[in-house]
This record gives sequence, structure tokens and C-alpha cells, in this order.
Amino acid sequence: MRKLVLKGDIVFTPSMDEFKIYKDSYLVSENGKIVGIFEKLDEKYKDYTLKDYTGKMIIPGFVDIHLHAPQFPNRGMGYDKELLPWLQSYTFPEEAKYKDIKYAERVYRDFVKELWKNGTTSAVIYGTIHKESTKLLMDLLIESGIRAYVGKVNMDRNSIPNLTEDTERSLRETEELILEYKDKSPLVKPIITPRFVPTCSDALLEGLGKLALKYDVPVQSHLSENTDEVKWVSELHPDAKNYASVYDKFNLFGQRRTIMAHCIHNTDEEIDLMAKNGVYAAHCVHSNFNLSSGIMPVRKFLDKKVPVGLGSDISGGHEISIPKVMAASIQASKMKWLETDKKLKPLTLLEVFYLATKGGGSFFGKVGSFEKGYEMDCLIIDDSNLGIYRELTVEERLEKFIYLGDDRNIVDRYVAGKLLKEPR
Amino acid sequence: MRKLVLKGDIVFTPSMDEFKIYKDSYLVSENGKIVGIFEKLDEKYKDYTLKDYTGKMIIPGFVDIHLHAPQFPNRGMGYDKELLPWLQSYTFPEEAKYKDIKYAERVYRDFVKELWKNGTTSAVIYGTIHKESTKLLMDLLIESGIRAYVGKVNMDRNSIPNLTEDTERSLRETEELILEYKDKSPLVKPIITPRFVPTCSDALLEGLGKLALKYDVPVQSHLSENTDEVKWVSELHPDAKNYASVYDKFNLFGQRRTIMAHCIHNTDEEIDLMAKNGVYAAHCVHSNFNLSSGIMPVRKFLDKKVPVGLGSDISGGHEISIPKVMAASIQASKMKWLETDKKLKPLTLLEVFYLATKGGGSFFGKVGSFEKGYEMDCLIIDDSNLGIYRELTVEERLEKFIYLGDDRNIVDRYVAGKLLKEPR
Repeated sequence: MRKLVLKGDIVFTPSMDEFKIYKDSYLVSENGKIVGIFEKLDEKYKDYTLKDYTGKMIIPGFVDIHLHAPQFPNRGMGYDKELLPWLQSYTFPEEAKYKDIKYAERVYRDFVKELWKNGTTSAVIYGTIHKESTKLLMDLLIESGIRAYVGKVNMDRNSIPNLTEDTERSLRETEELILEYKDKSPLVKPIITPRFVPTCSDALLEGLGKLALKYDVPVQSHLSENTDEVKWVSELHPDAKNYASVYDKFNLFGQRRTIMAHCIHNTDEEIDLMAKNGVYAAHCVHSNFNLSSGIMPVRKFLDKKVPVGLGSDISGGHEISIPKVMAASIQASKMKWLETDKKLKPLTLLEVFYLATKGGGSFFGKVGSFEKGYEMDCLIIDDSNLGIYRELTVEERLEKFIYLGDDRNIVDRYVAGKLLKEPR
Repeated sequence: MRKLVLKGDIVFTPSMDEFKIYKDSYLVSENGKIVGIFEKLDEKYKDYTLKDYTGKMIIPGFVDIHLHAPQFPNRGMGYDKELLPWLQSYTFPEEAKYKDIKYAERVYRDFVKELWKNGTTSAVIYGTIHKESTKLLMDLLIESGIRAYVGKVNMDRNSIPNLTEDTERSLRETEELILEYKDKSPLVKPIITPRFVPTCSDALLEGLGKLALKYDVPVQSHLSENTDEVKWVSELHPDAKNYASVYDKFNLFGQRRTIMAHCIHNTDEEIDLMAKNGVYAAHCVHSNFNLSSGIMPVRKFLDKKVPVGLGSDISGGHEISIPKVMAASIQASKMKWLETDKKLKPLTLLEVFYLATKGGGSFFGKVGSFEKGYEMDCLIIDDSNLGIYRELTVEERLEKFIYLGDDRNIVDRYVAGKLLKEPR
């Protein structure tokens, strides 16, 4: 049995109502699961491995529920365009390169290292249409110890020629990948990934829905990111009630655990369907800023009890760091409230911290909190260089880290109770 | 004569219409002023000191035209409030501490080091009401080699008791400081700094306007940041046409070079007066996000030919890094365009780069460009770690640095042709 005790200033959010803070306490885990938090260490834990992080903060690892690994080289470039022309000019040509496994390895190694560096301990990731590159990405993640869902992307229309699949082959390769990776690792799992309605024929969507049901595999896609996209979907599916209903018709909207990225321009009916089906919304603020997509009315989703997590959306978003996504999410909610709709109360630090940990983490199961039975995924934060001139509360220190910190403040990362080494 | 040649990939923006890019070229300066840029080095420069930065970018140093040094400890905290309660709860109590010169020294040393670290080579800075602390800040800036205007803040009403001045003393100390520092350093100069209309009596504003004219000293203050503030000013000055006219009446609105921070809720008439009087607007996007102030319609100011620069506005803004301010300024302009007013075309990378260099730099004179006769203020950028997988243009590399880089990418900083050492 792996027995681990970490000592430090422990912070987490079991709900959106409170920070739980335990100063100078002990976080005890067994076999990668949380046993409890104690102010004094009981005799029975005396033979556990004790790591002393006194004076540092211990927080849940960050959860990123939407990003594209193959777009890593495009970070910080091409933000002069909106979604559809951006996909055609920058994204699809880059993704076509991952037919070359050597290129894929070069990028994916850097990508995994960057996740590690920034304290993302759980991630829901898009690969490309290429099965071999996607397998490589999964293997690199398994090697790293990071928790992840990874999807081979499916797209059989409206893409560039060298990034368009044959429908049958797309389904066959998806099924092969599911079979090969379903039980390969306890941490890295496949997820069914139709890119979005415009690039998927009905036959493809139907086949993917069947695979999701057959193998009990979760699903991810994009929804209502951009008004031109929404209009295009309504032209492609003139009989559909709305965008969401296309996914829903093919069992890709909560029939298995599902994440929909962006959700900026959803109708109320679509939001209600997400709530009813338990479909997650991935809020990707930097991407929505950069591609002029708009500001997701997150408050509305929370009020309607839709599960929400945060996404970096590399490379629509340029920031892979979830704290940077958190700070921008608060800012965006203030602007939405001020400039657009005074009914949408801004998000608080507490709320976005919850979204970045337990909110997105719940997609993985018991992830993102330090309650008993949860996965022991955490970060050790040394905030001593963040300009501290008086005694601060732990909550103030956390706020400073979210707004001002970077990878240099993250001194250690654990997933399922194991210390993650820097990926090669 | 100091004779310096820097070799590398040179980028700057003489206007908002173009990036000037000289790959693998020589930037020649004499006595801290630019002489020219050459693809090959003429024989006559052979005895100049040559620093070889081949493969790195050479860009103008960043110019921050609005920030508060004493608020440095409050960065990343207290963003649950809007401007007026935020001033009362967080800012004024912090600023009152600068009566203690020892406390001031501790913070101001860190503050100056942080400017250095992030490549801010010119800054327009608020101190506090305290003359001795403000002098200390100016001396530390002189020691650092950073170019700056620094203002002793004036406020004789509507503040907390231990941060309220006697009007006569406020004017007397301001004059003493001007006399002492007017010619002390070629790089660090005084600036007249009424905090904002609500904290300054008419007598104080009148006296400060007279000092500005008498000693030919520039002016800085705040304008139309928050709707409650604008309303308060109209209550305090029921006879004034608008907020700007109060400053204007007292010769504090362009009679000498003037910066007004924020300018979010200006009337068209106020913007026209800024254009007419050449008053600078400091766009402080992160602060405006954090304090829910709103999004400045920068495009409108540019169209009306108001001079604009960027400000970090520490600590309303949390990011002291001007590249982070640039990226957020582009994002904010996209949201303003999308959510509020489709007539306000988003800002481009080229435009914000100009604002962050020559735009704000022009307040100092010939600063922020590499045209002949300009001050030799520059940064050396090593972007090799920013995920580069194909040959990028210099413009693409610059975009990546703005969006993804941090202080670790800035390898050297020069002001007036002198290499800046890390401040103690």
C-alpha cells in the first residue's frame, strides 16, 4: 500500500460556497486516495512517507477540460481571424502535419511537458484524425503520469483535402483505438471526438454515437462558439430544432458523459437540455476573446445547474496555464455583466477556483477536491516571491498566486498520490 | 562619446501602419541616440562596441504611462470591489503606510526591480502624498537607469484621515520636490499629480495648475474610470460642463503635457477636448477589467487623433508586464466591438505594439522607436523557447513573444544606450 502524508497550508473547494482552508496541516492518502486532513498527525500514520511542505500551499491539481494538442505550435499566432477562416487558414493545415509521426512526437513531447510545468494534472484533449499520432500522444501522457481523456478527431467533410477522412475508416480506426486503450491505463482513456457538426456527416455522427453507447466511452465536441458557425449548422441541418439537437439525435449529447466546448451563443432551450442530460460546458475564455467569439454567460449555466469546467483551448487560447484562464474568466464575467447584461453577476475567485478543480474534475470522477475518497491529485505552491509585505490569509495568498504566479511557483505535482517527474 | 552597435533582428513601429523589420542587421547609436540601422556595418563603425545578439529580436523598450508604485503590495488582491470602495478599503490604507520611509524602501526596491525584469524602460508613476518616500522612489529609479516621470500625489479631501493633506503644505512640498528634482537627472523627472477631482479641493487644483505653468512640468491624473466616480464629480462640481472641464479650468488639461488615465466613460465633447489639447489617454485594460470599470473605446480615441499609451495601472491592474497588457488590450477591443459597438474595429497587434512603444514613448520625447535621433531604449528578446516548429517570420515571432513570453525571454535592457544592470 502506498502511504503518503503531505504537510502544508491546504486549500480546496468542496462546493462553490466555500474555501476549505487548513493551515499547517497534514493531507493523508493511501493508494492515491485521500484519507483525511488532520491538524495533528495520529500515531497510526507515523510510518507513512511524510513530505514536509511547511509554509507552502497544497491545492488540487488544475483540470483543463478542453484543449487541442496538435495546435500547440500555433499558440500566440493568427488571432486576426474569427473561427471559420481561422480553422481553414491556420488550424487545419497545422493538424494535417500529424500524419508524420516524427513531427507529432516532437510537438507532443513539448506539449506534455508544458502541461506538467503549468500544473495541469487532468486534461481532456483533442488529437487529430490520425490514429498513430493520437496513440503516441496517449502513450506520452501515460508515461508522464498525467490524468487524461484523449480523442482521435473525426471529420469527413468541410475540411481541407489532406485533413478529411473516409467515413468508414474514421469509424473503424476510432473503434480500434477504443479497444486498444480502453483498459490500457487507469489514468489515460479514449474519448469520442467528432470535431463539430459542420465537419461530420450524419453517417459519421450516427456511427460515433453507437460506439459511445457500445463501449461506454465519453464524448466531446464544440457547440455554438461563433455566430457564423451556428448559422452554418442551421443551414446544414434545416430540420433540426437547434445546434445541440443534432448531437442529441445521434446519442452524442449526454447519453454518455459529454463535454461541449464554448457554449457562447446557446439558446435557453439548449442550456436546459444540457442541464437535463448533464452535459458539461467547457468555458474557454482566452479563445473566445482571441477569436472574437464572445463571452459565455457562465452565470446562466451555473444557475441552471449545468456542470461547467475551464478549458485553455490551445491554440484558440494562448495560455495553457489554468490560473491565467481563471483570472481571465473572472474578468470576462465582469465585462459581460457590465457591458451586456446586468443580470449576470460576475464570477468570484472562489467560483472559478471550483470550476478549475472540482468543477472540471468531476468529469473524471472523484477528482479536484480533497474530500475523503478523492484522487490524491495536488500541487505544491511556493508563493514566497509574490510580493508579500504583511501577514496574508491563505485565501489572499491563493488569490495572489492565481493572478500573479506562474510555473516557477509550482514546486511539485502529484497525481493519484504519485509525484510527477518532469517529462523527458 | 559612447558608441554602440547591437546586432540582431530589429523590429519597431514608426507609425500604426507598419512594422519596420530588419533581419540580422546593425542598430547603431552614439551617446544614447539612434544613428541608423544597417544591413552591413560600414568601416566607420568598426571601433564601436559591438554586442552580437544574432538570432534574437531587438525591440524598443516598453513604456508604461500609468501605474502606482505604492500599490505594488496589493497586486492580485481585492478585485471583488469597484473603484470607490476599492480605494477606501484597499488602496488608501496601503498608501498611508508610506509615511514610513523604511517600508517605502522595502517595497520600492522590489517595484523597481520588477519594472526592470519585465522590460519597462520608461514609466509614468504615482507615488503617495509623502514627499520623502517619493524622493526615495525617484532616487531608486535614477540608480536603476530606468526613464521615468514620478509624481508626489496631492489629495486634501475625501480620503482617509491619515492620507489627507493640508492644502498649503501639499502645494509647498510639491514645489520643493519640483525644484529639487527638475534638473537632478536627465532620465527621472517630476510630474504634477492631483489624484483625481474628488480628492482635490479647488484651491489645490488651482495651485497645482499654477505650478505646472510656472515650472513647465507635466501633469497626470485620472478621468472617467467608473460611472459612480463620474456621477460624484458632477455632484461636487454642479456648474462644470463635464469632468474634463474641471481639470481644464485649472490649467491641468494639456496646458502642459498631460496624461489622463482610463477615459472609459468620456463624452464625445471630452474626447474632442483631449484631441484639441493633446492630452494623452492611458489605456489600462487589466485594471478596467478587474475593477469592473468597463472597456475604453480606444478606437474612438485613435480615430479622433488623441494620443494614447498603455498603462499597467498597478494595482488596479495585476500585470506589470506590458506584453500582457498588450494582449489583453487586443482582447478587450474585440469584446467591445462584439458585445457593445460594431463600429469600433478591434485593435491589431501592430497598433498595440505602437501604443506600447512610440505611442506612450512620445510623452517622453523621442522615445519608443528606432528612427534616427531617437533615444536608444531597447530590449533583447530570446524567443527560442516559445515553441517554434517551423521557420517563422519576425512578425510571427514577435506575436508569439507578446502572447506567450515573459521576463525569462528578455535577456538585456538598454536605456539611452546604457545596459541596465539588475537593480539591487
